[in-house]
Amino acid sequence: MVREAYKPNVLNGRCPSQQVLDMLADKWSVLVITCLGGETKRYSDLLREIGGISQKMLTHTLRILEQNGLVARKVFPVVPPHVEYSLTVLGTSLKEPLAALCRWAQNHMVEVQAARASYQDGENRKSSSLVA
Amino acid sequence: MVREAYKPNVLNGRCPSQQVLDMLADKWSVLVITCLGGETKRYSDLLREIGGISQKMLTHTLRILEQNGLVARKVFPVVPPHVEYSLTVLGTSLKEPLAALCRWAQNHMVEVQAARASYQDGENRKSSSLVA
Repeated sequence: MVREAYKPNVLNGRCPSQQVLDMLADKWSVLVITCLGGETKRYSDLLREIGGISQKMLTHTLRILEQNGLVARKVFPVVPPHVEYSLTVLGTSLKEPLAALCRWAQNHMVEVQAARASYQDGENRKSSSLVA
Repeated sequence: MVREAYKPNVLNGRCPSQQVLDMLADKWSVLVITCLGGETKRYSDLLREIGGISQKMLTHTLRILEQNGLVARKVFPVVPPHVEYSLTVLGTSLKEPLAALCRWAQNHMVEVQAARASYQDGENRKSSSLVA
């Protein structure tokens, strides 16, 4: 009997692909990978270029991405230590899907803001009709 | 003087597109949108089809997606209440970018698992050389 090949499925809570998605579906992971792009950068470059990230969050995110094989960390034994980060081959294959997600956020932010305002209006009308 | 058009940029911490990315870059948001696809589904369908999601998290995620104009909620005034969810036009435009992300997770989960194991091996070797 031939065993059917296992078909990965993110909707299956026991499939490792759902864990992988969980690691990727994180604003800071997306922004670190986007910011690295095809370049090699220092920690201080990333900290400066990714608006809103804290040192603690950048360190944490780089560690997770390194553990998962998406980012390579190269330490140069000089004083003070010089550390460079770049995408691995695996990380590079994520550039395009994540770029598409970032483009969507950039291209549709006005529509999302309008939808939020309209939802809030509806909620406010409901509350005022309850008070009246 | 013509004012230069504002160019959205997710790397800018004050750009609304970074907030939009934050809302999207969430495992459960991705899975709810993926599970809805082009269909209309009931709450119970989503709860059954999205492995690992709790009722509380599904309710929370649907609310966020509705507030942001990605999911439409239709309530039928019957007893017991019948509620249906579907993607809006805006939400539908996200299907393909999110599908690409899910495909990446499914197609590369084995490589990510291997990278994790290899990283862990490296860490273990470091610890044992310290003990020795």
